[in-house]
Amino acid sequence: MTANLLGKVSLVGAGPGDPELLTLKGKRCLEIADVILYDELVNGELMKHAAVNAELIYVGKKPGAHCTDQKKIAAMLIQKARAGKYVVRLKGGDPFIFGRGGEEAQALKRAGVPFDIVPGVSAAIAAPAYAGIPLTHRAHASSVAIVTGHRALASEGSVNWSRLAAAVDTVVIVMGLHNLGAIMTGLLEGGCEPERPVSLIQWGTRRSQKSLTATVATVAGLAAARGFTAPTTIVVGNVVRLAEQLDWFQPRGEKSQPWSSDSQTELHAGSPR
Amino acid sequence: MTANLLGKVSLVGAGPGDPELLTLKGKRCLEIADVILYDELVNGELMKHAAVNAELIYVGKKPGAHCTDQKKIAAMLIQKARAGKYVVRLKGGDPFIFGRGGEEAQALKRAGVPFDIVPGVSAAIAAPAYAGIPLTHRAHASSVAIVTGHRALASEGSVNWSRLAAAVDTVVIVMGLHNLGAIMTGLLEGGCEPERPVSLIQWGTRRSQKSLTATVATVAGLAAARGFTAPTTIVVGNVVRLAEQLDWFQPRGEKSQPWSSDSQTELHAGSPR
Repeated sequence: MTANLLGKVSLVGAGPGDPELLTLKGKRCLEIADVILYDELVNGELMKHAAVNAELIYVGKKPGAHCTDQKKIAAMLIQKARAGKYVVRLKGGDPFIFGRGGEEAQALKRAGVPFDIVPGVSAAIAAPAYAGIPLTHRAHASSVAIVTGHRALASEGSVNWSRLAAAVDTVVIVMGLHNLGAIMTGLLEGGCEPERPVSLIQWGTRRSQKSLTATVATVAGLAAARGFTAPTTIVVGNVVRLAEQLDWFQPRGEKSQPWSSDSQTELHAGSPR
Repeated sequence: MTANLLGKVSLVGAGPGDPELLTLKGKRCLEIADVILYDELVNGELMKHAAVNAELIYVGKKPGAHCTDQKKIAAMLIQKARAGKYVVRLKGGDPFIFGRGGEEAQALKRAGVPFDIVPGVSAAIAAPAYAGIPLTHRAHASSVAIVTGHRALASEGSVNWSRLAAAVDTVVIVMGLHNLGAIMTGLLEGGCEPERPVSLIQWGTRRSQKSLTATVATVAGLAAARGFTAPTTIVVGNVVRLAEQLDWFQPRGEKSQPWSSDSQTELHAGSPR
């Protein structure tokens, strides 16, 4: 193989779900790609930007098979690039925020394959925005943490929930719905008041967006009762109260319901996807 | 005035600097806007998307005059919308991450002016990505905090630096360069080891991007010696070490220098803007 034949890989953020939140650079990459490897959280509508003869490969992961799949994905990126292809690795949200983009970039580097990074709008920021929640606000929050709830227990060497509660004003948790009860318990143990507001936003920024406002004490029970499923973004902090005023997005044209501050009121709930 | 005459305001994230990191939705808003109010951190190249007859208003703030200016900006948004205009309020990065978008949206809501939010790629995420730093990584960081360094002292009721150091793996500080020494002292007081790596990225994602790698102990002195100025994104955490492998962006085509882990080595420094 000559150097001229070596292709390239772009790790591209697809944005949070609304297909118009793709970047101009991301669109250009999709238009000229020979091969596109895309995840389960990528909105399929984005494939309309691909060339007619582009090879589209779905690499959504099956639960419990993460490691093997990740190795296979890296191997496929390297193989396609070595065959001279321009490869787009399209990842939900931003590739460097819980997207394992760092690991894929390292594998490409080790293999000598040129790569670049195209940041995307993260669902951790945009899903709250579509629910009317600014993660920071001069009067309410000067710090925000974005954490994974994938491994919730401290014994697993993951996030320190009790310290987090006292350290930042707003906490955004991604991939945390299945550990919601344990996470809220961790926050309470760190001194978080039980009444602190929590918002859940499922399929944020999509027409199927559905959200719920509760408190640290009540959210786990309500999430189960209302049938929330992944992907759901969790926001903890006083900024959640601003959704009462700033809620602007009406998925499927439904009128949102007025917010009541005295209990676990549902803000607005679109129909399931 | 009749209801039909009432316009609308879109709070639009311009992205971090690279004009191709604007979203498709942001571009569409600019194309159809009657009026565009834009900040000092917005890349002027984006104005090429505006219609020929659009009214372009620069509302960059003068230091020390924040409050007055903010009121004037809100008043102008309301006035233009009440005159029936479609107004785009274009803000650097994302409007709901330290962009005061929440405050502007509240003012619009109080005035009865319809608004929506168009999230953008935040410089807090994209500037590190362009310096080869993934803010999270399965092996190195499962949590990231994004905080403002604008008011650095705890007595000012701002970020709790000492708690932050122990609570999250990666800390990103925006608007913190002028308080860099005080911020690093706060992190050290919270138990942060002096050797923890720190990256500074000035004008991140632009052709004029310039960056520096140091440690919590040494960064303040080096930043002054190298003449760093705002806007500079500060990243603290072990993920900074990954830039050694993953550095891919070469501003102005300059070759980056090899990284040495034993001291406060400069990663790559483009010429000033």
